Amino acid sequence: MILAADIGGTTCKLGIFDASLKQVERWQIPTDTSREGSGILEAVHMSFKQKLEESGLGYGDCRGIGIGVPGPVDFSTGTVNGAINLNWRAPKKIKHEFERLSGITAVVDNDANLAALGEQAFGAGKGRGDIVMLTLGTGVGGGIIAGHHLVHGTHGSAGEIGHMKVAVGENFKCNCGGTGCLESVASTIGLKNLALKYSGDFESSVLKPHIEDGSLKAITVFKNAEDGDPLSLFLVDKMSFYLGLGTSSLAALTNPSQIIIGGGLSRAGDFLLGRVRAYFEEYAFPPAAEGTEIVPAELGNEAGIYGAAKIVSQYIDHE
Amino acid sequence: MILAADIGGTTCKLGIFDASLKQVERWQIPTDTSREGSGILEAVHMSFKQKLEESGLGYGDCRGIGIGVPGPVDFSTGTVNGAINLNWRAPKKIKHEFERLSGITAVVDNDANLAALGEQAFGAGKGRGDIVMLTLGTGVGGGIIAGHHLVHGTHGSAGEIGHMKVAVGENFKCNCGGTGCLESVASTIGLKNLALKYSGDFESSVLKPHIEDGSLKAITVFKNAEDGDPLSLFLVDKMSFYLGLGTSSLAALTNPSQIIIGGGLSRAGDFLLGRVRAYFEEYAFPPAAEGTEIVPAELGNEAGIYGAAKIVSQYIDHE
Repeated sequence: MILAADIGGTTCKLGIFDASLKQVERWQIPTDTSREGSGILEAVHMSFKQKLEESGLGYGDCRGIGIGVPGPVDFSTGTVNGAINLNWRAPKKIKHEFERLSGITAVVDNDANLAALGEQAFGAGKGRGDIVMLTLGTGVGGGIIAGHHLVHGTHGSAGEIGHMKVAVGENFKCNCGGTGCLESVASTIGLKNLALKYSGDFESSVLKPHIEDGSLKAITVFKNAEDGDPLSLFLVDKMSFYLGLGTSSLAALTNPSQIIIGGGLSRAGDFLLGRVRAYFEEYAFPPAAEGTEIVPAELGNEAGIYGAAKIVSQYIDHE
Repeated sequence: MILAADIGGTTCKLGIFDASLKQVERWQIPTDTSREGSGILEAVHMSFKQKLEESGLGYGDCRGIGIGVPGPVDFSTGTVNGAINLNWRAPKKIKHEFERLSGITAVVDNDANLAALGEQAFGAGKGRGDIVMLTLGTGVGGGIIAGHHLVHGTHGSAGEIGHMKVAVGENFKCNCGGTGCLESVASTIGLKNLALKYSGDFESSVLKPHIEDGSLKAITVFKNAEDGDPLSLFLVDKMSFYLGLGTSSLAALTNPSQIIIGGGLSRAGDFLLGRVRAYFEEYAFPPAAEGTEIVPAELGNEAGIYGAAKIVSQYIDHE
């Protein structure tokens, strides 16, 4: 068996997979972030122990566990350098702690990386060795897979697609402290930035009251864009333009067969992806772009635990 | 023994390495691009055969050959999709042809990729698993190494760093047919583009006659910038700004320990690299940039054959 955990700020998604990576159990437990999240790993451990016992199994029947967390992970040591959503303020040695609790080998990675790996192995990129995934939500996350393996980089900080510099001219401050990041123009935060900057150029828009009182939601922008509201259409187009530039650079750098778009904003479907594709085709380096498709993610919020199971099969020797 | 060839438009650099990748022979032959370059591989083969015989050796003593060519290579098949500098107009099955000539296994890759691998294995990135190399010359070439292996992508068109979209606002047409490419602002071509666009903003400059008669050279720009000419300084600064943005995105995407700058323009040394570093530090995503150094290449024109030898040791099983 292979165990998989995707630890998020609200829930921990847990799964048990068989040796052929077929999911045999799937459940979740709430994430208790009190006391600086000090009980999270223990709770995950206890839940696995109980679920395994219910099936007459134990940790001894498991090859290992894959664990995804929302923070920057040093993949070689399995240490996360803090995770704000889990209330982990300091570096946490997840691999070490979970191995001590369970006695089995743990492989730890960033949750967005594991979502990319899940989509590559079981979702929109099934069977392809080279893919890029972008997750468009409050911010922009991502993961890069080259030759079937995640690109981790020297400190595990690779795949930070939201911090590509595509929009320096807009001059929006990003959460990272910098300016020009893809996240600052192609996320819920990005739509708000663009709306504040450009709404004055439009005489009237159903968005204006939402912009003024700070309640603007991405879904409102997309819904009104589909209904023909000029400001909403302008915002979706601007966001698509920057995603077109970003994906063009990604194609030139890693030449993926698929660029997979997931996250809450991707629910806008072809209304968004069609525009992104048009800018991609306009800007992308032709030899690298050839054969690169821009496609929606398929696994939704399940991508992470699929990736967590997959990475165990990649990094723990078959017994 | 391991054989290595770096086939360029003027010369073919050839080398013999021992099993520990120490270079034991190094010579070159002219590249004959006549008759659509149809004799190039045969000439390389004959030269290796003769050099081996002079040492009392033969192909039977060789584990394989690495071959670099200036064009887009499908790494899995060893086919280059044309190479303008070699007068190869159509796709050429280099791996297949050289294996038929020599009887030994050939590994074929793009020359800029092999230069990156050479620098990673023996030069400025020695011993590091994650590096990026940029070659600044007439254009901008590059290679990306993640986890000790070159990123090839799905059609071998990865690492085209010159075609990252960093300068869409400048609106210079690139050789690739697109606009906004790093190559269009950070190469000899790029300096010419910037000079033509901005020289009118400067009352006088020693560069102006060169810009007007089309004879502007990169070395002239750097020399006069060092002497304080305002237009020349402006051009070096603009180029550095765009290199700072490009390297910032590369750090966020692949989190390398070193970004290695080579090619003719890198001879400007810290006068250029210091400015690139300053913009990199201003823009780069802090966690990914941490520990990333921007350093000059060390192997110059030799990087390619070192990379050609290295890739044989990576992709041909030890016997």
